[in-house]
Amino acid sequence: MQDLHGVFPYLVSPIAPDGSVMEEVLAGLVDHLIASGVHGLTPLGSTGEFAYLNAAQRRRIIQVVVEAAAGRVPVVAGIAATTTAEAVRQAREASELGADGILAILEAYFPVPEAGVVAYFNAVADATELPVVLYTNPQFQRSDLSLPALEALSRHPRIGYVKDASTNTGRLLSIMDRTEGRIRVFAASAHIPAAVMLIGGVGWMAGPACAIPRQSVRLYELCRAGDWTGAMALQRRLWRINELFARHALAACIKGALEIQGFPVGSPLPPQPPLSAEGRREVENALRALDIHAENA
Amino acid sequence: MQDLHGVFPYLVSPIAPDGSVMEEVLAGLVDHLIASGVHGLTPLGSTGEFAYLNAAQRRRIIQVVVEAAAGRVPVVAGIAATTTAEAVRQAREASELGADGILAILEAYFPVPEAGVVAYFNAVADATELPVVLYTNPQFQRSDLSLPALEALSRHPRIGYVKDASTNTGRLLSIMDRTEGRIRVFAASAHIPAAVMLIGGVGWMAGPACAIPRQSVRLYELCRAGDWTGAMALQRRLWRINELFARHALAACIKGALEIQGFPVGSPLPPQPPLSAEGRREVENALRALDIHAENA
Amino acid sequence: MQDLHGVFPYLVSPIAPDGSVMEEVLAGLVDHLIASGVHGLTPLGSTGEFAYLNAAQRRRIIQVVVEAAAGRVPVVAGIAATTTAEAVRQAREASELGADGILAILEAYFPVPEAGVVAYFNAVADATELPVVLYTNPQFQRSDLSLPALEALSRHPRIGYVKDASTNTGRLLSIMDRTEGRIRVFAASAHIPAAVMLIGGVGWMAGPACAIPRQSVRLYELCRAGDWTGAMALQRRLWRINELFARHALAACIKGALEIQGFPVGSPLPPQPPLSAEGRREVENALRALDIHAENA
Amino acid sequence: MQDLHGVFPYLVSPIAPDGSVMEEVLAGLVDHLIASGVHGLTPLGSTGEFAYLNAAQRRRIIQVVVEAAAGRVPVVAGIAATTTAEAVRQAREASELGADGILAILEAYFPVPEAGVVAYFNAVADATELPVVLYTNPQFQRSDLSLPALEALSRHPRIGYVKDASTNTGRLLSIMDRTEGRIRVFAASAHIPAAVMLIGGVGWMAGPACAIPRQSVRLYELCRAGDWTGAMALQRRLWRINELFARHALAACIKGALEIQGFPVGSPLPPQPPLSAEGRREVENALRALDIHAENA
Repeated sequence: MQDLHGVFPYLVSPIAPDGSVMEEVLAGLVDHLIASGVHGLTPLGSTGEFAYLNAAQRRRIIQVVVEAAAGRVPVVAGIAATTTAEAVRQAREASELGADGILAILEAYFPVPEAGVVAYFNAVADATELPVVLYTNPQFQRSDLSLPALEALSRHPRIGYVKDASTNTGRLLSIMDRTEGRIRVFAASAHIPAAVMLIGGVGWMAGPACAIPRQSVRLYELCRAGDWTGAMALQRRLWRINELFARHALAACIKGALEIQGFPVGSPLPPQPPLSAEGRREVENALRALDIHAENA
Repeated sequence: MQDLHGVFPYLVSPIAPDGSVMEEVLAGLVDHLIASGVHGLTPLGSTGEFAYLNAAQRRRIIQVVVEAAAGRVPVVAGIAATTTAEAVRQAREASELGADGILAILEAYFPVPEAGVVAYFNAVADATELPVVLYTNPQFQRSDLSLPALEALSRHPRIGYVKDASTNTGRLLSIMDRTEGRIRVFAASAHIPAAVMLIGGVGWMAGPACAIPRQSVRLYELCRAGDWTGAMALQRRLWRINELFARHALAACIKGALEIQGFPVGSPLPPQPPLSAEGRREVENALRALDIHAENA
Repeated sequence: MQDLHGVFPYLVSPIAPDGSVMEEVLAGLVDHLIASGVHGLTPLGSTGEFAYLNAAQRRRIIQVVVEAAAGRVPVVAGIAATTTAEAVRQAREASELGADGILAILEAYFPVPEAGVVAYFNAVADATELPVVLYTNPQFQRSDLSLPALEALSRHPRIGYVKDASTNTGRLLSIMDRTEGRIRVFAASAHIPAAVMLIGGVGWMAGPACAIPRQSVRLYELCRAGDWTGAMALQRRLWRINELFARHALAACIKGALEIQGFPVGSPLPPQPPLSAEGRREVENALRALDIHAENA
Repeated sequence: MQDLHGVFPYLVSPIAPDGSVMEEVLAGLVDHLIASGVHGLTPLGSTGEFAYLNAAQRRRIIQVVVEAAAGRVPVVAGIAATTTAEAVRQAREASELGADGILAILEAYFPVPEAGVVAYFNAVADATELPVVLYTNPQFQRSDLSLPALEALSRHPRIGYVKDASTNTGRLLSIMDRTEGRIRVFAASAHIPAAVMLIGGVGWMAGPACAIPRQSVRLYELCRAGDWTGAMALQRRLWRINELFARHALAACIKGALEIQGFPVGSPLPPQPPLSAEGRREVENALRALDIHAENA
């Protein structure tokens, strides 16, 4: 199974007013991120607005990203459904389109008992030959994966990773400990990446890395080199970006930060609001403080 | 605008293992409910598992219900989306398929500010000539409609109803008061129907009415006649059904109660669990206590 | 065991800046409420700010209320503690001071398992010969009483009542049904009193009744007479008071409403804020709409 | 102002069945902890069961701890109240009893607006000459301190620390950043101490340090020396203690762990449950894995 690690930006989904995927914009963003040194790409994560896209849009986005990446870095595609059947269908589709891994999300309306949650993720992992990253987000999903459920899932040969979007960093150490390393941990934007690397994480999958890819990669390298003093000095500067993105709507913020840098990715799909004028000013200031300007203009 | 009132069962969605809609089963259920005296039908409500069905399944269900109802009672079809564009598309489709009203649901992943929520529902109401029932459910959706938002929405000529699935009965009285009657209130299964009728409600839209339609209609008639003593005597007996359905998974319970009565509607879509053996025994006992047996067997 | 029923205002606790109980103000309020026809009095409920008072203040308040009531109506005194020992001590003290019943509250910091909660309330009921009203408030307390716990507690010969401060009116019907009437239900300010009377409640214990006692008693009488049309006409007018009190801080609102009527009860204890100028205007308008003016001025 | 840093165990409160403080047990524990190298002591924290003790018990506990510590390490005493007046009284009392710092806790019943929260903590800091540690716990208290509130409070010359008992480690970095270092951060048992030290924390105040003081001090020293590899190796072993304590009731677990080591501190005050037999076995195993046995037996 492929070894996934490093900085995986959650790609935004640029959608035109008529609902079509803005393919050149997306391909250009992929090129820019790979040129910036990211270790992989994650289309259809939370800030990729998977929850706002229909089946055709999702399919086209994976296709465009896989083609643009052209094998330079692994593409871990998000799949998300309320039913096992639809999740399996999406996973197979992602595999057929050439994705290198699956980011597996369970959407829920009614609460699902844990046995059902475990069955769902195992079915997704059974559906293809690809490595699976479990995505858990207690804030926006209605079911969380308990430690016993994660331990059970860690026995599947293709479930090797979790991206945990809680704010609870201690939980990440418990996951590593409980699964004896069978599940490797990617941080999310609510965790401090350097702290997650210290405790044994393998990288992060997050929206902000889409806006500050070079700096994210540099932080990853400092952590891997064990230069914790250097890592924390950079981490402190970058943390303001995460704070800012948490204060404003996350998807709007990242799309706004890319627009500022010259990527015409548009706004989140309505009724999600676009980035406010005040939010845009704050993002501009935060990027300028990191010497980030319109690179693509 | 059509006057909607009375008992509107939330129809279950019978889906075959291959994903197809079991059309004869659904049409048979429609006939049974109309013969039982219900005042309308609501396909694609929460216990209609709208959140678990794809676009083709949703479309087919509305079509089958409209055709089976054949104008005998109004059909208020559920539409539910995360984006305004998709909600408008679904509303138009429901109208074209012959629905008599729209039950409008906002699904959310990221939180949406109130202005966005209001814009979403207004867009749905603008999309067709049909009356709109707002559906609010603080438990399973991520946005609730505040009283100021409801007041704003009540100014739309086609937004005339709310079905409130909170457990907060006081909120219903506040909605009636605040909108000066422009928004009429349907109860949900978590409210006591007789109490909601007392304070001025016009009926209920709920899953349990699918399993006990005759008794529900009788309760409605007692309330309308102002026979509160008789209404409460019946209400006390029927409440045990609501309690039971709240204790077990709601969709599984109602599908199970219909299976017991001879309607082969199947189980909820996985990973939702089917009704447990213990749950089935409890439902059987509860139905027997109401003298309900397999009518269709 | 004494039959408790009717309107029991939650008495505010008038405390002078030096921390002493303003005894004459409190006694005057007691006289006024009894003259207004209330059926009982409840010092040290939530809007009686029990959580903000020390042991000496609580003791003195019960003493003053018992003496002022002078046996004209029953006094059901609130007791509240985190430990069983302290709750038992308070219950015995209330009994020695002449209270006619105990309103039993469990305060919690760490969560307590249900067996501990049941043991706590049973210990309180064992401590004296007085009837016990269980107080459950899922919003402000950290433990709620499940239906099985309430059923277990209903077997105690002196636990005969519950005052449920959830907003879930359906839960009240379930309590009556589950305990087969052994536990009688008082509504709280978040429930619609007329609806609770319809489903079988015996009255209400609530802060607003302190501000509108005559109207509350009239509503109770209409409900008892089965005049539901008359009851709902009055209920609709009174509900605006409950809404107002829910919108502003409850204790501040009720103290403010009494100040407006000429009872110098002061403000809630800091850091609780006093009623804002805007809140005071709204309360004045709401009282004026009910023809309530300074009766005591 | 005294520089507080390092490992501050939250002392348990040993209470005899008659309600008296078991003074010799407490003094013996103080001696043991100081001999184990801890940098300070915190009586009346959450696992010190402050919420379960009356005024006399709280007073006596501070007195015993101050006397037993005899100036060898600073004593930061917990004060906790719902009213500003009582909090000020407790702070003055702690100062008079010889405490070296105040751990300030706001208890709440009704929600308090932020201005009231800020006023409360400023009043506590004004009350004595002692340095103040703000305690924030979103899980067990009803108000949390926002970043703007913390920034405002950081302007007080004696408010220099926060102990944050959320699980959100990112929030700690935001606090340090937002207050530009004016507020120094102690971790709580839900955070990974080594991770908090990496991002700039000054130590931890927590219950588990009462049970594993030597190991906690060793971890602190490794962090201070910048030996992050060594720190994480030890941290991984110690984290199982925190996990265990989170799984069972925290106060029961720590009291149980001390009983196992020969300190007869008893059980938490009822209705809190004592440590279960299974919990005791798990704690014994966890301590044995750290080579901790009955040192005091």
